[in-house]
Amino acid sequence: MAEELEQKQGRVADTVSSLLQGGTVPEAQQMLNALHPAEIANLLESFPTTERKLLWELVDEENGGEVLLQVNDEVRSGLIQEMDEDELLAATSGMDMDDLADFMQDLPKTLTGEILRSMDNQNRQRLESVLAFPEDSAGGLMNTDTVTVRPDVSLDVVLRYLRMRGEMPELTDHLFVVSRFDHFLGVLRVSDLLTRDPSGQVDDLLDTHAVAIAADTPAREVAKMFEDRDLISAPVLDERGRLIGRITIDDVVDVIREEAERSILSMAGLGDEEDMFAPVWSSTRRRAVWLGVNLITALLAAYVIGLFEATIQEVVALAVLMPVVASMGGIAGTQTLTLVVRAMALGQVASRNSRALLFKELGVGVLNGLFWAGALAGIAILWFGRPAIGAIIAAAMVINLVVAALSGVGVPLLLKRLGIDPALAGGVVLTTVTDVIGFMAFLGLATIFLI
Amino acid sequence: MAEELEQKQGRVADTVSSLLQGGTVPEAQQMLNALHPAEIANLLESFPTTERKLLWELVDEENGGEVLLQVNDEVRSGLIQEMDEDELLAATSGMDMDDLADFMQDLPKTLTGEILRSMDNQNRQRLESVLAFPEDSAGGLMNTDTVTVRPDVSLDVVLRYLRMRGEMPELTDHLFVVSRFDHFLGVLRVSDLLTRDPSGQVDDLLDTHAVAIAADTPAREVAKMFEDRDLISAPVLDERGRLIGRITIDDVVDVIREEAERSILSMAGLGDEEDMFAPVWSSTRRRAVWLGVNLITALLAAYVIGLFEATIQEVVALAVLMPVVASMGGIAGTQTLTLVVRAMALGQVASRNSRALLFKELGVGVLNGLFWAGALAGIAILWFGRPAIGAIIAAAMVINLVVAALSGVGVPLLLKRLGIDPALAGGVVLTTVTDVIGFMAFLGLATIFLI
Repeated sequence: MAEELEQKQGRVADTVSSLLQGGTVPEAQQMLNALHPAEIANLLESFPTTERKLLWELVDEENGGEVLLQVNDEVRSGLIQEMDEDELLAATSGMDMDDLADFMQDLPKTLTGEILRSMDNQNRQRLESVLAFPEDSAGGLMNTDTVTVRPDVSLDVVLRYLRMRGEMPELTDHLFVVSRFDHFLGVLRVSDLLTRDPSGQVDDLLDTHAVAIAADTPAREVAKMFEDRDLISAPVLDERGRLIGRITIDDVVDVIREEAERSILSMAGLGDEEDMFAPVWSSTRRRAVWLGVNLITALLAAYVIGLFEATIQEVVALAVLMPVVASMGGIAGTQTLTLVVRAMALGQVASRNSRALLFKELGVGVLNGLFWAGALAGIAILWFGRPAIGAIIAAAMVINLVVAALSGVGVPLLLKRLGIDPALAGGVVLTTVTDVIGFMAFLGLATIFLI
Repeated sequence: MAEELEQKQGRVADTVSSLLQGGTVPEAQQMLNALHPAEIANLLESFPTTERKLLWELVDEENGGEVLLQVNDEVRSGLIQEMDEDELLAATSGMDMDDLADFMQDLPKTLTGEILRSMDNQNRQRLESVLAFPEDSAGGLMNTDTVTVRPDVSLDVVLRYLRMRGEMPELTDHLFVVSRFDHFLGVLRVSDLLTRDPSGQVDDLLDTHAVAIAADTPAREVAKMFEDRDLISAPVLDERGRLIGRITIDDVVDVIREEAERSILSMAGLGDEEDMFAPVWSSTRRRAVWLGVNLITALLAAYVIGLFEATIQEVVALAVLMPVVASMGGIAGTQTLTLVVRAMALGQVASRNSRALLFKELGVGVLNGLFWAGALAGIAILWFGRPAIGAIIAAAMVINLVVAALSGVGVPLLLKRLGIDPALAGGVVLTTVTDVIGFMAFLGLATIFLI
């Protein structure tokens, strides 16, 4: 069941792919353009570069702009390179201001000038007002297509105005009520407009407690507000309280999805806008950085092992068992770390409760440490027939799981204080600690008690 | 900047906490209830169990239901245990049908009977229709508060009907047009209702291409549809095409967020509805499972090392360097795995492109393998002064990074074919492979060429 949509898309992709190879281009084209632009974008991302270019030629011009907005950054720049100026200009027509503002950052400078010149004054000003804010702020997310009314008119007047206007922007769940100087006063709900007596005044239905968002609010925070309060749209105000635009839930959903993807991909040191068929060479370079960081931490662990070369030479069983201690610490620590990083992202960790959290995690670490220490000691004794090795590995295990709990709570708090994103760097730092402590505890105890 | 909202919430939490400790309960209560229910929920989750209970006593009854819906499952059951039947009944009043259906699963059986009895016939039928579907399907997500109109009336009649009705359900962006037998015909957009000539017929504005969702569609797929098509609400139909409810974007946003959290938490073997202050004992038991799985894989790697005890005894430097090879393979493999699992979730991996993907990843593996093999060989030679060790570790590194690329692509595809979630099990299987191959290649080559 869960695969239905995927399966459908997969079937279309397979068919399009074989039609292309068979040379029946018109049918492939028809099939492709019957999809929703978001589905076309998804499909384009899934084709290797050469086939992707062929496919992109087949996408109807009317879908082009929307598809470009939906593919990831890296795929987008690849597609843009294949387009001439006229095609690019055509793709931008009909884009929302916030989308256009994002899109223009990928275009050659000459073209952005041309786009700005081809707009009327009002639209140019609107676009420039969006471009004035960072992409990941409320101002960068906003659209400028607001419908505004005055507080001192009747609903009937508003209804007549809307009929004259002829259409409303998508996702309009309320109209914005503003003063003569564009100062935001509150909202008028569309549902009130439909259900209340038309002779009433806007004033009387004005909701002055509606959420209004300052233009410099970070996108992540905007998403949280939409999520907590079930918003569809919200007004964006400049620093003087004037209405300058509106954010809609569709853009917020994209923010939420991108944020989630970013956290998963960044844990593996990957960017979130990567083309899965990026050229081998550029993928290699990007991933090499993360591998280099890991090499340094692995060498640090190796250095610790090197301190105990003599001990290992004496008792080779230690070399066999030492990765087990390190690895269990890494797993236990990662569990605590994941929990703490998530709670930190929700604003749930502070000095008031970090102590209680630490004690709880220490408790879990000690209990699981004792339990698995017992199990592992038994296995070690059966395997190597030396009770002393069993005792030593048990002690090292308890030590490492306690250290894992300490680091799982402490490392993200420390990183945050240093201004480093714990979601990005937490895992590397933590496993370095548990590797080093794991090897040191196990080999150190062995040196003291076995040799 | 990014911390503003968190900081605000943190400040409130600190103040409430110190007010409570100082015994100034009324002020704490006032401060708490000035927050939005979602914020209260977030705050409750962040307090250790004893303080949380105190705080929960202070939440106003009118906020209670909404707060209960917003906290995670484990915290919710804890709070419900503190409430008597009357409080629980009060909390359920005014809940949407989909929320109530979820909530009832946490209530004692006696109470659910009472709730059903206290409802009128119509609402009971509605609730039962939601309860009939799994929680994570369109039917389980839907609400039953649809506004329906007939196709053969004028807009004016619809407007008068709405004024008579007096209010509309939240997030109503279109009305559903149904036949006499409740068969879904299409939607009438609220914006058309507002902007078109009221003497026109519903028929003429009927959008028959609007997305309609079958009740058994999985939640994940519903979310994808909302996301791709920027929907606010969509009708839910039974297998005979009759309108039975409606899904709104606010519930979909929750699905998206939960799905994202689940993927991050499940990578560390954690559940997504865990209380961060769960009792130590129950946390210990839950996490022990994942540690146990890891112990088995770690012992497998230890077994492989054990095969080469004699070799290590001869050249202890091998024991020092062997974790480096294993760890680099794990990192490189995780990068490929993360990329592939994400693409699979988007339906972007199929037999048509898995070969191209594999070749690309192999290319990256070989190049990064050669590069870091060179670097590591240099370090090994400088460290231990034996060129042979450098050559062997370089060869093992290339082998392991190639195997990592193969497994990064192959393991998730294989797991999926076996019906196992690659996001859950992929990491463990992959690192087991890279550990085993890393140790085997390095120690095996050393046994052949050094001894």
